[in-house]
Amino acid sequence: MTQEYTPKHFKVTFPADRPYVAHVEINRAEKMNSFIEIMWLEMGQLFDRLSEDPNVRAIVLSGSGDKAFTTGLDVKAASQGAVLSAEETPQDAARKATAFRRHIAEFQGCITAVERCEKPVIVAMHGYSFGLAIDLSTAADVRLCSRDVKFSVKEVDIGIAADIGTLSRLPKVVGSFGWVKEVALTARVFGADEALRVGFVNGVYENKQETVSAALGMASLIASKSPVAVQGTKEILNFSRDHSVQDGLRYTGVWNGAALQTKDVAAALLSGIQKRKPTFEKL
Amino acid sequence: MTQEYTPKHFKVTFPADRPYVAHVEINRAEKMNSFIEIMWLEMGQLFDRLSEDPNVRAIVLSGSGDKAFTTGLDVKAASQGAVLSAEETPQDAARKATAFRRHIAEFQGCITAVERCEKPVIVAMHGYSFGLAIDLSTAADVRLCSRDVKFSVKEVDIGIAADIGTLSRLPKVVGSFGWVKEVALTARVFGADEALRVGFVNGVYENKQETVSAALGMASLIASKSPVAVQGTKEILNFSRDHSVQDGLRYTGVWNGAALQTKDVAAALLSGIQKRKPTFEKL
Amino acid sequence: MTQEYTPKHFKVTFPADRPYVAHVEINRAEKMNSFIEIMWLEMGQLFDRLSEDPNVRAIVLSGSGDKAFTTGLDVKAASQGAVLSAEETPQDAARKATAFRRHIAEFQGCITAVERCEKPVIVAMHGYSFGLAIDLSTAADVRLCSRDVKFSVKEVDIGIAADIGTLSRLPKVVGSFGWVKEVALTARVFGADEALRVGFVNGVYENKQETVSAALGMASLIASKSPVAVQGTKEILNFSRDHSVQDGLRYTGVWNGAALQTKDVAAALLSGIQKRKPTFEKL
Amino acid sequence: MTQEYTPKHFKVTFPADRPYVAHVEINRAEKMNSFIEIMWLEMGQLFDRLSEDPNVRAIVLSGSGDKAFTTGLDVKAASQGAVLSAEETPQDAARKATAFRRHIAEFQGCITAVERCEKPVIVAMHGYSFGLAIDLSTAADVRLCSRDVKFSVKEVDIGIAADIGTLSRLPKVVGSFGWVKEVALTARVFGADEALRVGFVNGVYENKQETVSAALGMASLIASKSPVAVQGTKEILNFSRDHSVQDGLRYTGVWNGAALQTKDVAAALLSGIQKRKPTFEKL
Amino acid sequence: MTQEYTPKHFKVTFPADRPYVAHVEINRAEKMNSFIEIMWLEMGQLFDRLSEDPNVRAIVLSGSGDKAFTTGLDVKAASQGAVLSAEETPQDAARKATAFRRHIAEFQGCITAVERCEKPVIVAMHGYSFGLAIDLSTAADVRLCSRDVKFSVKEVDIGIAADIGTLSRLPKVVGSFGWVKEVALTARVFGADEALRVGFVNGVYENKQETVSAALGMASLIASKSPVAVQGTKEILNFSRDHSVQDGLRYTGVWNGAALQTKDVAAALLSGIQKRKPTFEKL
Amino acid sequence: MTQEYTPKHFKVTFPADRPYVAHVEINRAEKMNSFIEIMWLEMGQLFDRLSEDPNVRAIVLSGSGDKAFTTGLDVKAASQGAVLSAEETPQDAARKATAFRRHIAEFQGCITAVERCEKPVIVAMHGYSFGLAIDLSTAADVRLCSRDVKFSVKEVDIGIAADIGTLSRLPKVVGSFGWVKEVALTARVFGADEALRVGFVNGVYENKQETVSAALGMASLIASKSPVAVQGTKEILNFSRDHSVQDGLRYTGVWNGAALQTKDVAAALLSGIQKRKPTFEKL
Repeated sequence: MTQEYTPKHFKVTFPADRPYVAHVEINRAEKMNSFIEIMWLEMGQLFDRLSEDPNVRAIVLSGSGDKAFTTGLDVKAASQGAVLSAEETPQDAARKATAFRRHIAEFQGCITAVERCEKPVIVAMHGYSFGLAIDLSTAADVRLCSRDVKFSVKEVDIGIAADIGTLSRLPKVVGSFGWVKEVALTARVFGADEALRVGFVNGVYENKQETVSAALGMASLIASKSPVAVQGTKEILNFSRDHSVQDGLRYTGVWNGAALQTKDVAAALLSGIQKRKPTFEKL
Repeated sequence: MTQEYTPKHFKVTFPADRPYVAHVEINRAEKMNSFIEIMWLEMGQLFDRLSEDPNVRAIVLSGSGDKAFTTGLDVKAASQGAVLSAEETPQDAARKATAFRRHIAEFQGCITAVERCEKPVIVAMHGYSFGLAIDLSTAADVRLCSRDVKFSVKEVDIGIAADIGTLSRLPKVVGSFGWVKEVALTARVFGADEALRVGFVNGVYENKQETVSAALGMASLIASKSPVAVQGTKEILNFSRDHSVQDGLRYTGVWNGAALQTKDVAAALLSGIQKRKPTFEKL
Repeated sequence: MTQEYTPKHFKVTFPADRPYVAHVEINRAEKMNSFIEIMWLEMGQLFDRLSEDPNVRAIVLSGSGDKAFTTGLDVKAASQGAVLSAEETPQDAARKATAFRRHIAEFQGCITAVERCEKPVIVAMHGYSFGLAIDLSTAADVRLCSRDVKFSVKEVDIGIAADIGTLSRLPKVVGSFGWVKEVALTARVFGADEALRVGFVNGVYENKQETVSAALGMASLIASKSPVAVQGTKEILNFSRDHSVQDGLRYTGVWNGAALQTKDVAAALLSGIQKRKPTFEKL
Repeated sequence: MTQEYTPKHFKVTFPADRPYVAHVEINRAEKMNSFIEIMWLEMGQLFDRLSEDPNVRAIVLSGSGDKAFTTGLDVKAASQGAVLSAEETPQDAARKATAFRRHIAEFQGCITAVERCEKPVIVAMHGYSFGLAIDLSTAADVRLCSRDVKFSVKEVDIGIAADIGTLSRLPKVVGSFGWVKEVALTARVFGADEALRVGFVNGVYENKQETVSAALGMASLIASKSPVAVQGTKEILNFSRDHSVQDGLRYTGVWNGAALQTKDVAAALLSGIQKRKPTFEKL
Repeated sequence: MTQEYTPKHFKVTFPADRPYVAHVEINRAEKMNSFIEIMWLEMGQLFDRLSEDPNVRAIVLSGSGDKAFTTGLDVKAASQGAVLSAEETPQDAARKATAFRRHIAEFQGCITAVERCEKPVIVAMHGYSFGLAIDLSTAADVRLCSRDVKFSVKEVDIGIAADIGTLSRLPKVVGSFGWVKEVALTARVFGADEALRVGFVNGVYENKQETVSAALGMASLIASKSPVAVQGTKEILNFSRDHSVQDGLRYTGVWNGAALQTKDVAAALLSGIQKRKPTFEKL
Repeated sequence: MTQEYTPKHFKVTFPADRPYVAHVEINRAEKMNSFIEIMWLEMGQLFDRLSEDPNVRAIVLSGSGDKAFTTGLDVKAASQGAVLSAEETPQDAARKATAFRRHIAEFQGCITAVERCEKPVIVAMHGYSFGLAIDLSTAADVRLCSRDVKFSVKEVDIGIAADIGTLSRLPKVVGSFGWVKEVALTARVFGADEALRVGFVNGVYENKQETVSAALGMASLIASKSPVAVQGTKEILNFSRDHSVQDGLRYTGVWNGAALQTKDVAAALLSGIQKRKPTFEKL
């Protein structure tokens, strides 16, 4: 029996023809899917739940509407919110810094929920994909986009260094550090072809619908594999990104000490011989 | 006087026209060069010896036969072997995990022998290059392939997270982390062009013969340089991959404190002026 | 009032039409801009001063003359210099190693001045760009080049492992570790197209003039942004390159605790609404 | 106005004569303050709230009753609980491992709440202080104990390696690694004198009451200082423990860039001159 | 059935009254147990075998004879050996450095075998315990000594920086970094009381016999516990020493995912209730 | 021929009876040796020069006058200085933070000069040793003190978290992290006995004169050893403090590859046999 997910600003569906795949849509199209504070709290909780939901093996994240995956933070709403208005309080600069730091840490944690989610997350981007869109997507595992996408590490244009993930993750997601520096320092818009060439996205599709469809296809493919193998693969890759090769190997050995005891290995081998689709227990 | 190498499942030759180059071939073509346990033990010992052999300055690794560099682990043999059958013993899960962990660590060490080998290793891949082929090649320094190559990070398809190197090394060998995640999570086959585009291989050649020939050519070129400079370059690059830039610089300074005292610098400079090939002492 | 910079071997100008942009030219064209010892000491001091000059927000580094960005170390001068001739002293090998190590550390520090410079540095390369040219450029933020450029990690050809930065930084600047190994181990020359394809440079231009012009244009664009945001972005990206994502996020939160208190955010937002160019206070 | 804290298994008080000091008591004396699952969830939430409560500047943690600070996990309750009984489900070993890993991570997070709490935590221990007592106390900043205390890293005696903090934190809390290994490998009980000698506790007091009183005294002293200085000190010490000295210095510089702008510096200096107690704004 | 161990320079016994305890004695009393090259190769192999021997759960290491645990390297023999005499070959300094580095790495690996041994190693030291004695003992888990012991980090007195472990491990074994620096820089002899005070040893005993007896007693105690718990405890403590607390916790969770599935937990709990000695399966 | 050192606020002498020992005294007794800005710049330059002076093999640092080693920053002078008065400029908080950060980094660099000095530094402390005294001494290798010493990590009392080294180095200098936290969070004064007990100092002497004398004695002893061995020992210990054991061992092997080629080994061995004092070449 599938759990119910009813966040207010996200739509969560389970496509009938795609077992074990969850589709999360940012659901504020009327505001270009821009984020208000409640939304990233919801998003953090949502991915923490999906992470342990045994009926979910892969997740697609996309934006509702035609115009934008997300234009990023809803700056207008934010400027009326608690944090920025806090600037007007008579607190000294050290106290304001503490308030900002706490706020940033909480916001970062919500984005990191996508990375720490045990199941692979494939993000399908289209239209405006600015600021937070980049932060969010670099926390995901695979990025796909439509031909009309407009990417920008926009933060520098509003006077801030991006602080919820892009600057920490983008250099580890893309090979060319010079390119990362350029787009982060200039905030210039770049499109699908450039994103593919530098390795930011894995594939470019004709339009939003085909992008989402391709993402769901990849999610289905992953969801058809052993969840023990898939979740181990994501975890070990993320651990290895941040550690030496020697540490990565040591961690892998400990991880697989348990994981190799799964019945999925036998199931996978047998179904390989029998040329049929294996069935794996929930995880 | 050249040492003799007589591993049972590898062929080691020293092409007469290519001084200081060793050519190692996986020699089990009748089984698509798939690996049985004895083979990776042999391979580990082989590369540990080559590492200190003063007559060797660069190494090419390729697979015998037309069909495959290697299809990876010989699953059939493995399933009859000690480790997997150990699953049937009445040991509890913690004890089985210990057995697996020890086994993985030993296997990893054999693959790591290629990385810790002091001499550069160029791998020439063709045909099926699945699973272990990827683990092995990421421990090498340079990867070349033929047009007909079929790569796959295959492990997820048999229910396991790759545990002998691919997941720890591939993210550090290739720039696009999204691409690494996709091929590791889906096990989909990819070919020569894609491998070149993402930077997994350095060059694509018409067929196996030309690939091996190109690898031998690159090995010869490297073997014609100062072995002090070449071995220092490999070591410092590998150290730097796993450390901060500041640590890399510090390590380099210590390394070169001794290395710069070589007579090779004078020999190289002089032969540069005299437009002739320098000769370097053994190392 | 702009500070004056009068290093002997560099030309420092402040293009009138490009506010806050400094243009540094290596100024020894008669020797292909090759470096003698005094030059890298001058360069280190120069970038340390530019780093704190409030009238500078972005820097372009290029080489004077038509033939070369720089051919690297002036080997002839070096071979007459103190360090190499030190080899002839009767000191034992351990003492010579100490002398070399101190010398390397000092040299490295001068190159690192480009990286630790708080302002983004865009390097425009043309013609011969060998050895030190690569070390220097990897310490910069963005690399551009002209179509006629000839790159080479040349050190291995003179019997040494590159020791002032290339081997520690190049693997973190470019995605393909195999490509890095190949060019560092073979010293082969590579050109503009290859450099663009592997992500070593961000763009290729018709000739030196256009390259420098493009670099100045990018520097101007960056200099028009909030210096608080720009300098924060450079710092956090460099920190993140060498740390785990979790450490990067933590550092970012602390950094932005102060940086978000800048008036630049309001200035940027307001000028965005008013469709005019913002003005930012000096930093 | 002070917030209200009403966890079920902890008593939270604010001693009237000790401004800004919170006193948290484990409140299950009838079961020797042993922990059931709900308790560590409560504890995590409690410390996360205290961390941001502007009326709290230092915290004392102690156990209610005469017999024990805590005897650790309530093994009897645990053995009836969800996790251990999960062992009887027909899941394979890999799936069980996942369940355990998720459970451990959640439990660890609750203990880590004491470490990440921005305010210093002083723990006053007496009587039985086994297992979880050690995990918990190593996450605190200062440990005090009464003469009758009985410490034991007890986990090895019930067949497990301590997994919620002791093994990761104790080697960084105490200087002698050999002593840490001995007490962790043998589970032998050690007393107050030994704990003081090896640096595990900062002070030994006659009985529980005097220990708590001393802890409250130290908390009061800390609470009388600038909260900007105190919280910065805790944070930088914790960061430095896990990083190189160079990284610690860099982080400190960024932290104090904002913190030095506090009015507390002037307040502290002035009251020093005037020989009176300074007043600091809330944080 | 117990394996047989017949190294030439070590005596390996299994005290009948101490199940699962191995006693290794350095067996060259006629030369003060000083080490010749073959000995540390033997020692490395010995501990690698003990590490996986299911009949061994704890190990005591001591020296034969009355005078010395070991006086360290047999300098006389070494000065006639291959490595030092290599100094007379006409190789340049860079090539000699390579030979030394390989040699040191091999030697270090033999000492590290004591650290990577999965079973706890308790070292009992008496009499002269110079140079290598310190290297060796810091790779062990617990150090005990007799009242007559004479310790010295002796290497600086023969013109070398200790290079097989002391300088890397001693700062992590003992709390006072200043004390470590003093004894390493001065090579002064220190005795049992000082060693106890600074935390280098866990206990001091009247004479060699009592020291060995105490070591065997501690080994017996450890060997009576669950081997799953004991070996996990050693491994996690060693991992945590070299990593951040957060990394230590993450590693612990993965490790215990498998380890908690052992039957030893039930056996330990049950025997605790029944007040009898538990029996644990081999590992 | 000895170099001359004429800093304004430090006295540098070379005791005639103590070859190769430099004695540096903080020379502002009339102000309790408190530091003004020019002093730490002088100090940084001084130790950078001593580091490479071949006539110096060990250094003693002490304070002139009877009352204090140093009372720390001259707060009165500082409050009139550029940085603190900068607080009154109309710069925004982000720009002020940049000014502070640059200032802290420069100050830290001067203190770090003591740590990066290649020769061991022994600090002899007496009387008031507050604030900066602790920062400075933790950057030294060995700390000695007189019975009348009064230590305090004083910074928290003036509203700041210590930012020039204490918080990053003290946890790595002393074993008990709880003790470090207590003294840093409370700023309480502690004396010689406590400092000895926790391992902060290596020895306590009757008065200032005897402390300095003991420091000079230890410096003489160290200066009588091979400078190759001594400087290698300091460097490897410092490197190992901040890295894993495995990294420490690797670095050691590279370091000693050159260092073992010194003639000092033969000189030391020979003079050992001949029972006479060895002579070592300058370094």
